[in-house]
Amino acid sequence: MTAQASFNPKAFRDALSTFTTGVTIITTRAADGSPIGITANSFNSVSLNPPLVLWSLAKSAYSLDAFSCTKHWNVHVLSVEQEALSGRFASRGEDKFAGIELDRGINDIPLLHNCTARFQCRTAFMYEGGDHVIFVGEVLGFDKSHLPPLAFQSGQYALTARKPREGVRLSQIEQVAPECSYTEDLLGYLAGRAHYQLVAFLRTLLQNHKLDEHAFFVLSVLSIQDNLTLEQINHFVAYTGREVTLSMLLFLQKQGYIVADEQSGQQRFVLTGEGREVSLEHVALAKAVEEEVTEKLGSGDTQALKFLLKRLIQATDPGLPDLWATEGPAMNDYQQV
Amino acid sequence: MTAQASFNPKAFRDALSTFTTGVTIITTRAADGSPIGITANSFNSVSLNPPLVLWSLAKSAYSLDAFSCTKHWNVHVLSVEQEALSGRFASRGEDKFAGIELDRGINDIPLLHNCTARFQCRTAFMYEGGDHVIFVGEVLGFDKSHLPPLAFQSGQYALTARKPREGVRLSQIEQVAPECSYTEDLLGYLAGRAHYQLVAFLRTLLQNHKLDEHAFFVLSVLSIQDNLTLEQINHFVAYTGREVTLSMLLFLQKQGYIVADEQSGQQRFVLTGEGREVSLEHVALAKAVEEEVTEKLGSGDTQALKFLLKRLIQATDPGLPDLWATEGPAMNDYQQV
Repeated sequence: MTAQASFNPKAFRDALSTFTTGVTIITTRAADGSPIGITANSFNSVSLNPPLVLWSLAKSAYSLDAFSCTKHWNVHVLSVEQEALSGRFASRGEDKFAGIELDRGINDIPLLHNCTARFQCRTAFMYEGGDHVIFVGEVLGFDKSHLPPLAFQSGQYALTARKPREGVRLSQIEQVAPECSYTEDLLGYLAGRAHYQLVAFLRTLLQNHKLDEHAFFVLSVLSIQDNLTLEQINHFVAYTGREVTLSMLLFLQKQGYIVADEQSGQQRFVLTGEGREVSLEHVALAKAVEEEVTEKLGSGDTQALKFLLKRLIQATDPGLPDLWATEGPAMNDYQQV
Repeated sequence: MTAQASFNPKAFRDALSTFTTGVTIITTRAADGSPIGITANSFNSVSLNPPLVLWSLAKSAYSLDAFSCTKHWNVHVLSVEQEALSGRFASRGEDKFAGIELDRGINDIPLLHNCTARFQCRTAFMYEGGDHVIFVGEVLGFDKSHLPPLAFQSGQYALTARKPREGVRLSQIEQVAPECSYTEDLLGYLAGRAHYQLVAFLRTLLQNHKLDEHAFFVLSVLSIQDNLTLEQINHFVAYTGREVTLSMLLFLQKQGYIVADEQSGQQRFVLTGEGREVSLEHVALAKAVEEEVTEKLGSGDTQALKFLLKRLIQATDPGLPDLWATEGPAMNDYQQV
């Protein structure tokens, strides 16, 4: 903890923003009936009985008049899918509601779709709050979906990973091992075990197709980037640390999954219809496994996991070629990674 | 979105709790000088100039008198390490401050250690808020650490995964592929690539020790559970889908990493000093790689990733034996997973 900070506005904002919040859009109508909406993260619950919530609005805000006059406003707790909407309502724009379909609520205050929760409110109190006005609203109606909510922390949008009350520990043994030894908390162990446990679900299907994990990678690569040389295939799977050999490709050819195509003196490999079918069957199974995982973890937590894996991959990427780029890697890109 | 919900208190609480918050402990002193502290997530910022924050306290709370009289209170935004402290201050207890060291602040209001941020406040306003009182405080001093903050959502503690503004995409190509095909968003692909990219950092060291990834697993297992039979070793590494053979163990023996020990007709394998050293060297490198990753992702996001990987592993665990249990798996546990 740093010592008592001097009181500068930026440092104060930085300290405040460490408090995680959700993100809301709060809507009302101006006196002339035009829809008003702003993004706010100053929302919070106040009272259960009577049902009250609050939020704060800058006294300098263009929408202060509307919120002061109308007395009715709706709070929308945004879902992870609504990040773009949050940005739209956070900026000053003429046409925030353009193209947005609205639901019918208790009154004609704009009610947005696809939120995590919504609260239809009437101003109960307006309180002095320095450069802001604190609006306390009585909740007249509310609803809730199962969409995971968007969060905000230190000036960035965030996803959340909920912690089950019982905690998450793989081993039943308290690992009081010395700093230098191997524990279940090692990132590399966790990534490896997660990978192998997911692959295990594919194993029976792989065996039925007489494929090992490595051959499966080759088919996967060819299902995205067809018509590749052995060298190009190896470039794409080099990150697994295992080399694809010509004899493996010939074995896949013998099984009818791929064919070799002689082009200007180079052998290029192409998936057969059967090869494509087998590859799609594996992808379909992988997706089914992912759906099961999503059901157990919740869709918000699964999204957070995938998002963090992508960040881990970016942080450790040795410069792998882009498998989804429409052209294969240029020949001068060929350094072994 | 469900239709307009009927107004029952539980449904209302559930809807409110979808709004993510941080977790704070707010402290003061009673008239008799005894320290008071409660856990609250109703905190939020109000105003920058003057610097104001707010939170709500139930009118029924035991501590209402103290907060009403003293006018001074400190808000502690809790870090992820302070979940237990949050629980302690959320329950009614005589001795919440027992054994807790306090910092010296502007006045003698208890100031806790190891928080993400702290705000030392004086009551500016107390407002009516239904079954709660809204405390608005002027911030007299604040500070901030680099500890990642604890979050709370839908009645559970949570970790956060921040979303960089630029987004996270592995391929430069927009993947508008049909539902059935292979995209960078497939959990199995992400787990596999993360695993292999992490292993890649160990590869040079493995090669120097004439080990492949599989042999490294064997040494790792023996570094935790020594004195195992071939069958037991295989039981622990079965999840990788590859079988350890006697000839691999003999190769490791020849290299001086393990020795076989004949016990009541069974060959059991034990790490040599050199084997232990090599294993520790690899773990040390894995930890160094993890530290680099943590620097890039931030410690909060790295913790969230590890936590979610553990949840994924639990969700997909085929019933693997506990590698860290003091006894090897009982012989009747021997079903191939």
